[in-house]
Amino acid sequence: MNMGLTRYSAAQGLPELRELIAEKLYRDNGIEASADEIVVTPGARNTLYLACAATLRPGDEVINFTPCYDGNISIIKIAEPQAIVHNVPLKGLDFVIDKQRIESLVNPKTKLIVINYPNNPTGRMLLDDEIEFIVRVVRDNELYLISDEIYEKITLSDKKHISPASFEDIREKIITVNGFSKAYAMTGWRIGYVHANKELTALMLKLNLQLNANTAAFIQKAAIAALTGSHTHLDEFIENLRARRKLYEELIASNVHLAGSYPEAGFFTFLDISSTGLSSDTFCTQLLEETGVAMLPGISNGPEFDTFCRISLANATEIISEGFEKLSDFVDGWVRHGR
Amino acid sequence: MNMGLTRYSAAQGLPELRELIAEKLYRDNGIEASADEIVVTPGARNTLYLACAATLRPGDEVINFTPCYDGNISIIKIAEPQAIVHNVPLKGLDFVIDKQRIESLVNPKTKLIVINYPNNPTGRMLLDDEIEFIVRVVRDNELYLISDEIYEKITLSDKKHISPASFEDIREKIITVNGFSKAYAMTGWRIGYVHANKELTALMLKLNLQLNANTAAFIQKAAIAALTGSHTHLDEFIENLRARRKLYEELIASNVHLAGSYPEAGFFTFLDISSTGLSSDTFCTQLLEETGVAMLPGISNGPEFDTFCRISLANATEIISEGFEKLSDFVDGWVRHGR
Repeated sequence: MNMGLTRYSAAQGLPELRELIAEKLYRDNGIEASADEIVVTPGARNTLYLACAATLRPGDEVINFTPCYDGNISIIKIAEPQAIVHNVPLKGLDFVIDKQRIESLVNPKTKLIVINYPNNPTGRMLLDDEIEFIVRVVRDNELYLISDEIYEKITLSDKKHISPASFEDIREKIITVNGFSKAYAMTGWRIGYVHANKELTALMLKLNLQLNANTAAFIQKAAIAALTGSHTHLDEFIENLRARRKLYEELIASNVHLAGSYPEAGFFTFLDISSTGLSSDTFCTQLLEETGVAMLPGISNGPEFDTFCRISLANATEIISEGFEKLSDFVDGWVRHGR
Repeated sequence: MNMGLTRYSAAQGLPELRELIAEKLYRDNGIEASADEIVVTPGARNTLYLACAATLRPGDEVINFTPCYDGNISIIKIAEPQAIVHNVPLKGLDFVIDKQRIESLVNPKTKLIVINYPNNPTGRMLLDDEIEFIVRVVRDNELYLISDEIYEKITLSDKKHISPASFEDIREKIITVNGFSKAYAMTGWRIGYVHANKELTALMLKLNLQLNANTAAFIQKAAIAALTGSHTHLDEFIENLRARRKLYEELIASNVHLAGSYPEAGFFTFLDISSTGLSSDTFCTQLLEETGVAMLPGISNGPEFDTFCRISLANATEIISEGFEKLSDFVDGWVRHGR
């Protein structure tokens, strides 16, 4: 701000930041990106809107994997109310991709597939055969893939996130969405970015100019500081997440009425509460009122997941430990006494 | 930022800021506003989108006065591509409202009228009979009025801006758009707000949550500082604008080939360049290339205004003076020698 970066700036984003993002995409993700294929926006939510609005027309079909980021379901509909969205549930508690169902759904009207790995809310990463499958589907069909990779840096093992756009021959068909909220704890700064081919970039840039003018230049400077600064803060955060995941494993192991996803990345896990017989919304409301513990109803992550709730591990370990105890007692109460 | 306001905050905006905006709307505009009828967004452009998306459905008709803010034409279409937009040109070089044409256009499908006073690009304010007319049309029909009042503080005479929402009986039908860019020179901070009835506020809030999450809280703190701080900076700015308007009057008076609007407010004026026989885009491109003087082609402000260009008076007075000389010579050259 003191540098005077408080006036209108380029709608696409500061060249300096876009250069750094292009370098980052190459270095971290193996994506051959150039600065003119990137648009900086006020948050990754906004890039999802831009990507959907730039690609979808009335009657277009969308394949959206569920459970998904709660924003996806609404943002696709806001961008194109007349798109036909097929939510395809991931299978079992491993939340694996339902290849057969996707193959049966893809048709010439399919314009877009939307994925989010590492996944919010399950914490799952793509398996090798799943990546191969997605690459093949994108290669063999005339469609775009939105890959929301906002949790890529928060991996709880040595397994590395793989970006679909790193596959050279499908690169032009991938729209990679990312931001600074998760890896740099910059949720309230509201800055994200999107990488796509030049044609889509031009469309998204026009939309961004009309709706947002530009992202505040001084916030872009903060993003530059984040990209060029040390990343050691992540080590401690990930170490803490591992400890909290252990508490979660113990919760599942100690309570026969509970099951859930096993998170490999991100800071969420998806809990199966079907034993209680409650809808996810009722479960979360009751739990919050009776114990003060807050979770997100699974129905927000996909209409097929009303017997799930999302747990956030992004809180102090002792608070999580206390929350899990209350959660476990609450579930026992419901299963045994119907309240 | 040092206060730690760098996390997610309320999607609607900080209560403290919304209270101050409600007070401001009552004090400055005579609008009976409450804080829960206000949504804070990353810029007034964004509020125009939210307002259009919240009100328009396929087949709805929109009446948009032209020349208008260049964003309006695209934002209405982005929000609802299947809206039918009737651009209604303001008449003559006084740019008065074409009441007859508007009366003939309003029908049960008319959902929205969009106005922007003080007007960008003409600098015109609403005449008393125009306000009466607008109030009557809104009162007598089932429709909403978007009133973009972003230039309200920049008035070059004692004439005060009048807000349509100050008329109690049509208050619920008015969507008032405003922001901090113009009155506080905060263009690059990206913060605006919208006031509407509770039902529309709830819809716009949902859209804002999905697309923007929230406006950065520390930017909202800057807006609070702007609202609660001294406003004396405007006196000097307006004094300078008056001096620049005088230069513009001299330009028009001294060159028989030029005419244009007489700005009463804002910092734009709309120049008639029809004597040159050039389209506005060609005129501006040639002028920029040959002289370094930049203007906005009038066609951006409305398809009917391709023989106009928008002049900005928001530059140093001596630069404007120099620019006008070059502009005058350029016009003479074209009229006399066809180049």
